[in-house]
Amino acid sequence: MEHIFEEIAIIGPGLIGGSMGAAIRGRKLAKNVVGIGRRDISLKKALKAGAIDRATTHLQEGTKNADLVVLATPVSTFGRIAEDLKKFLRSGAILTEVGSTKESVIQAVQEHFSERRDVSFIPTHPMAGSEKGGPENSRADLFEDAACIFTLLEGTPKDHKDKLEKMWEKLGANVHFMSPRQHDILVGRISHLPHLAAAALINTIEGVDGKFAGGGLLDTTRIASGDPELWKSICKSNPEKIISALDAFSASLLKAREMIADEDFEALGDWLAAAKEKRDGIIRSRENREAT
Amino acid sequence: MEHIFEEIAIIGPGLIGGSMGAAIRGRKLAKNVVGIGRRDISLKKALKAGAIDRATTHLQEGTKNADLVVLATPVSTFGRIAEDLKKFLRSGAILTEVGSTKESVIQAVQEHFSERRDVSFIPTHPMAGSEKGGPENSRADLFEDAACIFTLLEGTPKDHKDKLEKMWEKLGANVHFMSPRQHDILVGRISHLPHLAAAALINTIEGVDGKFAGGGLLDTTRIASGDPELWKSICKSNPEKIISALDAFSASLLKAREMIADEDFEALGDWLAAAKEKRDGIIRSRENREAT
Repeated sequence: MEHIFEEIAIIGPGLIGGSMGAAIRGRKLAKNVVGIGRRDISLKKALKAGAIDRATTHLQEGTKNADLVVLATPVSTFGRIAEDLKKFLRSGAILTEVGSTKESVIQAVQEHFSERRDVSFIPTHPMAGSEKGGPENSRADLFEDAACIFTLLEGTPKDHKDKLEKMWEKLGANVHFMSPRQHDILVGRISHLPHLAAAALINTIEGVDGKFAGGGLLDTTRIASGDPELWKSICKSNPEKIISALDAFSASLLKAREMIADEDFEALGDWLAAAKEKRDGIIRSRENREAT
Repeated sequence: MEHIFEEIAIIGPGLIGGSMGAAIRGRKLAKNVVGIGRRDISLKKALKAGAIDRATTHLQEGTKNADLVVLATPVSTFGRIAEDLKKFLRSGAILTEVGSTKESVIQAVQEHFSERRDVSFIPTHPMAGSEKGGPENSRADLFEDAACIFTLLEGTPKDHKDKLEKMWEKLGANVHFMSPRQHDILVGRISHLPHLAAAALINTIEGVDGKFAGGGLLDTTRIASGDPELWKSICKSNPEKIISALDAFSASLLKAREMIADEDFEALGDWLAAAKEKRDGIIRSRENREAT
C-alpha cells in the first residue's frame, strides 16, 4: 500500500495516540511513526507495544520533519504545546489533535497558529477509548467501526482534509463532519455526561459492600474507573455543555422520582419502555452497520 | 450426589427460574424439576433449554407434590399466586421466592400463609440477571460467584434454612443474611438506582444520533434494555428506598455540577478520583474472591 504520510509525529503515544501509531504502522500508512513524550518509561512501553518506530523526549527533534503531527496528550496541555510547535513545524505540515472537546481546544491552538497559515490545523475526535489508558493498552483495532468527527476550520486545504480523512478511513473509522459547537454539545451528552453519571453512582453507594455488586452496577459504572486527571481536563474544557447535559439528566431523574412518588407506575412503565426502545434501536443500527 | 430435594416446582421458569432449574438439574440437586407457567410457548422454551423436567400450566397439579416451591414470576404477581398456593402446598414444604425486593413481597405472601405454619416461607434474592430475559436465555452458571441474600423470617426451621442454603451454595452462590429492610435499602442503591440512571441517561440523549454512541455510553446504559414491565414491577415494590437512592444520586450530581460551575476543578478531580478508587476496589475484591 502506498504511504499516505512520510513521517507522523505522535505527541503523547498513550491509549489513543499509541493505538493510532500501532494501526498506522500495521497498515503501513506512513514510512515512519515518531512518538514524543515526557517520560522515558512511557515511551519504552509505546515502543514495546509496537505503537511507534522511534521515541524522543525532544519536541523539536521529534516534529520538525513530520508531515502529520498528532496532539494526543490531555486537552489541557494543547495550548502550551502549540506555543512551542509553532516554532518547529515545517511548512505544509498538517497539525491535528484527537481531544475530546473542540471549541476551547481550537481556541487554545489557533491562538498560537494564527501566523502559521502554512500549517493546516485539523481538529478531529476519534470516538473510541477504554478505562484502561496508557500505551501498554493500545490496540491497532481500537478505531474499527468507531466514529471519527472532523470539525473543519475555514480555509483548510481540501487535499489536506482528504489525506487525513483517508487515513482515518484506513484505520476503520467512519468520518463525520460537524461544527465545533455541535460536537461539544454532542459529546457533553453522550460521553461526558455518562462519565459523570457513573462517578456519581459510585459515589452514591458509599458504604455499600462491593460483594453485592452485580453485573448491572459494574457495567453502569465501568467508565468511572477511567483516569481522573484526564476527565478533570475534559470537564474543564467543556463546562458549559456539560452543565446543560447534567441539567437535562437531573430533570429526567426528577421525572422518574415524581412518577414513583405519585405511584404513577403506568407512566413509569412507558418511560422505561421508551428508554429500552431507544437503546435497542442504537444497538440494532450498530449491528446493521457492522453487517454491511 | 445425593438429592437435596425430591421435587422442585418453579413457578415462572424465565431467566432466573429457568437458570435455577438448569443448574439444579445439571447438579442433580433434585429428583425432578417441574416448571409452571401460564403460556405453553414459554414452557416449551424452558423444556428446550433443559431448565425443567416437565411442564404444566396447572398450578395445583404442578406444586402439590413439591418439597420446594420457587416463586420466580414478577414480584407484583406474588400475592395473587400465594393466595392460590396456600390451598395446595403439602405440609412440610418450603416456599421460597427470588424477587428483587423483600418488605412488600414478604407482606404480600405472609398475608396468605399466616394459617399455613406447616409451610416454611424463605425469601431469597440471587443477585444475578441479564437484560436478556426469558427461559431461552437461562444459563446453568448464572449464579456462580453471585451473592444470594436470605432475609429469614422468625420461626424458620433451621433444617429448612440449611437445605435451601446448601442448594444455593451448590449452585455456586455466596449466601448472605440480612433483614428485609436492609436488603431493600441495599438493592435500592446498587440495583434499582443504576437501572433508573441508565434509563434516564438514554432518555436524556433523545435526538442524538446513535452512530456516535461509544462503548462508554453503551455499557453505562446496557441495563436500560431490560424488560420495562419487570422493572416497573420492581419500582412499585420498593418505592421508598428507590426515592431515597434517587435523592442521594441527584445530590451527588448536583455537587459535580457546582464544582464545574464554580470552576473548582481540583475538587472535581478529587471527586472523580474517589469514584475510581471505590470502583477499582470493588473490582479487586471480586477478583480476589474469584482467585480464592
